Amino acid sequence: MTGILYGVGVGPGDPDLLTISAIRCIELSSVIAYPCLEGTPSFARSIVSDYIKESQEEIAIAIPMLQEPEPAQQAYDRAAQTLLERLQKGKNVAVLCEGDPFFYGSFQYLFFRLAKQCPIKVVPGVSSLMSCSASLSRPLSARNDVLSILPAPLPDADLKACLQVADTAAIIKIGRHFSRIRELLGIMNLKQESYYIERSTLPNEKIQVLDNVNPEEVPYFSMILVQRRGKI
Amino acid sequence: MTGILYGVGVGPGDPDLLTISAIRCIELSSVIAYPCLEGTPSFARSIVSDYIKESQEEIAIAIPMLQEPEPAQQAYDRAAQTLLERLQKGKNVAVLCEGDPFFYGSFQYLFFRLAKQCPIKVVPGVSSLMSCSASLSRPLSARNDVLSILPAPLPDADLKACLQVADTAAIIKIGRHFSRIRELLGIMNLKQESYYIERSTLPNEKIQVLDNVNPEEVPYFSMILVQRRGKI
Repeated sequence: MTGILYGVGVGPGDPDLLTISAIRCIELSSVIAYPCLEGTPSFARSIVSDYIKESQEEIAIAIPMLQEPEPAQQAYDRAAQTLLERLQKGKNVAVLCEGDPFFYGSFQYLFFRLAKQCPIKVVPGVSSLMSCSASLSRPLSARNDVLSILPAPLPDADLKACLQVADTAAIIKIGRHFSRIRELLGIMNLKQESYYIERSTLPNEKIQVLDNVNPEEVPYFSMILVQRRGKI
Repeated sequence: MTGILYGVGVGPGDPDLLTISAIRCIELSSVIAYPCLEGTPSFARSIVSDYIKESQEEIAIAIPMLQEPEPAQQAYDRAAQTLLERLQKGKNVAVLCEGDPFFYGSFQYLFFRLAKQCPIKVVPGVSSLMSCSASLSRPLSARNDVLSILPAPLPDADLKACLQVADTAAIIKIGRHFSRIRELLGIMNLKQESYYIERSTLPNEKIQVLDNVNPEEVPYFSMILVQRRGKI
């Protein structure tokens, strides 16, 4: 009997935004795996640390911080093999994933590698998309609004084409792309309708107007909400 | 001392997808309010029914089922007044909202009416966007994918313009628009990459290929996930 692989969405950071289902899947697993950037603690693990028991085996999946994708993909190849060994012994494995596993989530890399080899249950989580909107006190979308999620690393031309057809856009994964994005929003006359937030729901959450943001300090976990039209 | 108005995201339907924070805000409130379509039970209430106590006052906000928006807006005007009376007596009020309050959520109608009159805390919830993706075993987005959420009532031309620039699109609020959407996806050669799901995470959840769907039976709580490109 193969164990179950759980892809567990652990939400944006506040442990109170864990779901009952996420906590249960962690409790049902004898192995807890989570990604971390090489040499740093795992953010996903920190969210659920109160629920991990000493009797559970922990597997940190260290992802190299490099521009080229191959070393990260090789790390996932090795991790899939490691988890498969546990699963084939009948152990349940919970893989922790910030936010939601299928919304730009790292769990997908394991999902595609293991989908044919074991039963998989994905536990959806509260996404930072929603928690950023709540923290900003600015709704994402209502009625027949078009809402688009745009990764900041995309070229300006792609971002522009998408911004032109959306009522609201959430620009994610900002990090070192901040200055370019702020300039683009300025050119498109959208800067007054744009709201910046980083580390939503964490104790060091920060909300700023775009012109006050220091581009050198923008983390990966940041978002700009762009609201093109008056709402409701 | 004015009470706190909580906008509580209660997730897509499965009570196990409630967050700890949602349950806590319900417990902290002496008044529980929820929308319902006139003459029908409240879906949002059904999700949290295990957590509502007899000592709590319940206020059902009956929304008329009409094409024109005015009667619904008047119902929200009256509801805002009713809740404000409780809040001004120092009572906390939890307004239940399917999915997430700020993602096409009905809570927004109360939020805009009461934002200046009481403290408001929005509790983000698991969205059906994420639970549909989990149920379909099909990721929404990875890496630099553009993900767009498109309400089905939009005109074909708008939908087409948005579908052309997105990697993945989630078409929501389908209901009586199903036939038109299926035809549009056929014309755009996207039908083979489209996946239909209704009532995600509920006991009567249903997944079908588009050609097998009976347009007469498509509920409001349904989604078509369109994946334009091979992923990962």
